Amino acid sequence: MDSLFHWFDLVGVAVFAVSGTLVAYRKKLDGFGVIVLASVTAIGGGTVRDVILDAPVFWLQDQSYLYSIFVAAFITIVWVNKNKDFPQIVLEVADALGLAFFVVMGVQKALDYGVQDMTAVLMGTITCCFGGMIRDVLARQTPMVLKSELYATTCILGGIVYTQSLNFSVNTEVAMVLSMLATLSLRLGALKWGWSLPVFHYVKSK
Amino acid sequence: MDSLFHWFDLVGVAVFAVSGTLVAYRKKLDGFGVIVLASVTAIGGGTVRDVILDAPVFWLQDQSYLYSIFVAAFITIVWVNKNKDFPQIVLEVADALGLAFFVVMGVQKALDYGVQDMTAVLMGTITCCFGGMIRDVLARQTPMVLKSELYATTCILGGIVYTQSLNFSVNTEVAMVLSMLATLSLRLGALKWGWSLPVFHYVKSK
Amino acid sequence: MDSLFHWFDLVGVAVFAVSGTLVAYRKKLDGFGVIVLASVTAIGGGTVRDVILDAPVFWLQDQSYLYSIFVAAFITIVWVNKNKDFPQIVLEVADALGLAFFVVMGVQKALDYGVQDMTAVLMGTITCCFGGMIRDVLARQTPMVLKSELYATTCILGGIVYTQSLNFSVNTEVAMVLSMLATLSLRLGALKWGWSLPVFHYVKSK
Repeated sequence: MDSLFHWFDLVGVAVFAVSGTLVAYRKKLDGFGVIVLASVTAIGGGTVRDVILDAPVFWLQDQSYLYSIFVAAFITIVWVNKNKDFPQIVLEVADALGLAFFVVMGVQKALDYGVQDMTAVLMGTITCCFGGMIRDVLARQTPMVLKSELYATTCILGGIVYTQSLNFSVNTEVAMVLSMLATLSLRLGALKWGWSLPVFHYVKSK
Repeated sequence: MDSLFHWFDLVGVAVFAVSGTLVAYRKKLDGFGVIVLASVTAIGGGTVRDVILDAPVFWLQDQSYLYSIFVAAFITIVWVNKNKDFPQIVLEVADALGLAFFVVMGVQKALDYGVQDMTAVLMGTITCCFGGMIRDVLARQTPMVLKSELYATTCILGGIVYTQSLNFSVNTEVAMVLSMLATLSLRLGALKWGWSLPVFHYVKSK
Repeated sequence: MDSLFHWFDLVGVAVFAVSGTLVAYRKKLDGFGVIVLASVTAIGGGTVRDVILDAPVFWLQDQSYLYSIFVAAFITIVWVNKNKDFPQIVLEVADALGLAFFVVMGVQKALDYGVQDMTAVLMGTITCCFGGMIRDVLARQTPMVLKSELYATTCILGGIVYTQSLNFSVNTEVAMVLSMLATLSLRLGALKWGWSLPVFHYVKSK
């Protein structure tokens, strides 16, 4: 189980590193600017989660995460250089997959540290969203998490599905799959059909 | 006393959540973009303080802070939707109140962890300013704390009043009130009369 | 030895505080906006390093770092007001010196906490780069670390020189000097001759 979690974490780190590398490409960054964006996207959220939980930071004693970032960034660079372009959908699906993996990992780790359900859902959301948030701030673009296409909302939904499944004594593996399916389908649906969550009634729309 | 501190903390969190929600409204954010801005404004500064002090992060084992954010954000949304507009002064006074509460809480917590006076004042200033700083960075506006109307300065003054009052054996409650009055009056005065603290002699003013 | 390290740290903090103050001057900030930028530049990177290592934050129990920032900022303000201008090269050399000091301190502290070489080099890079990164984000300019003139790269090289020198049983002081020379010469060379590290083949250059 721990080993399965470790692989999930590595895959989540890799897809987020791909998303960071693609943003670096679109911003015409070079050299280690790519590595910086790939790294903060991939391990930023989990680092903030671990620091807040006062847990040992997950990549500190285990270099496999850093290798995962380097390999993912390298493959992305080779692919982008060969194909000169990439569809927006690739970035968005990579991101959605990262969300689905990370929300489960974040909520589970928070539960391991004994916090209550609502706080655990918040920690899962931080794991998902803070890496991309730091990436967007550094790349000087509006943080994706603040835009209206249900970005943070999908993390919160995925976290609620996971904690509630556990509360109803669902098997952990099943709860993980349910949560990831919920996150993925809400996020991809929001991207495809432009779902949003209006809160303020602005006088003139847009 | 601890219970009084807890209530102060909840009020500080609530007024900062209002300020985050109002920024989200002015930036035309929606859905959980509002919750993200309200939350980082409300608990960002205290989280950075606790992480640096290696104290347990204050909202991790106590969900009342999260409820406080949700309630404050909800009331603000309802009010804004009903009134379609809000005066700038509301945002500024809410922020000044948050400063006054948080500087005392931050300095006191740092003193509890055994740091010296000057460092405690710095920790109080971090508690006050970092939440709003993260809010402004995410909302892509110039951080209020860098502008010249004595923002960080008021926190430093409030912190100095508090630590010096304690050094002169003033009762804790009285020291808290003195410090909050100092913070509030300097901040509101700076807003009303445009006080600033020039440091550089620029060749052409402005 | 520890005392030598402490002095190195103080000098690194001071040159980074100078760089933060100069950015504040160029952005026409005033008052404590200067102190905020000087402080985050000077102690931001080391703070992030210590928080991730779960080490006591280096300036928390030792006010000499704060005095170092104030003195460096004060001298810079006096100098700038007297001379009305400063050459870009001053900012860049101050920054390069800060890098050279901080990469060694960061790598050594990470090694003291038992992390592996590659992770220690990363921690050295974080020590060097995160303070300036936060400074640039707050001052709303593109983070220097993302630009192509080998900024993070020099930190990584300096860190590798240090860890490898230690692995080849070089005396600690000699390893420090070698690492600092490597960092300084690569950074200054990159600035002088515009070295960069192209990764993506963009269809049109620039």
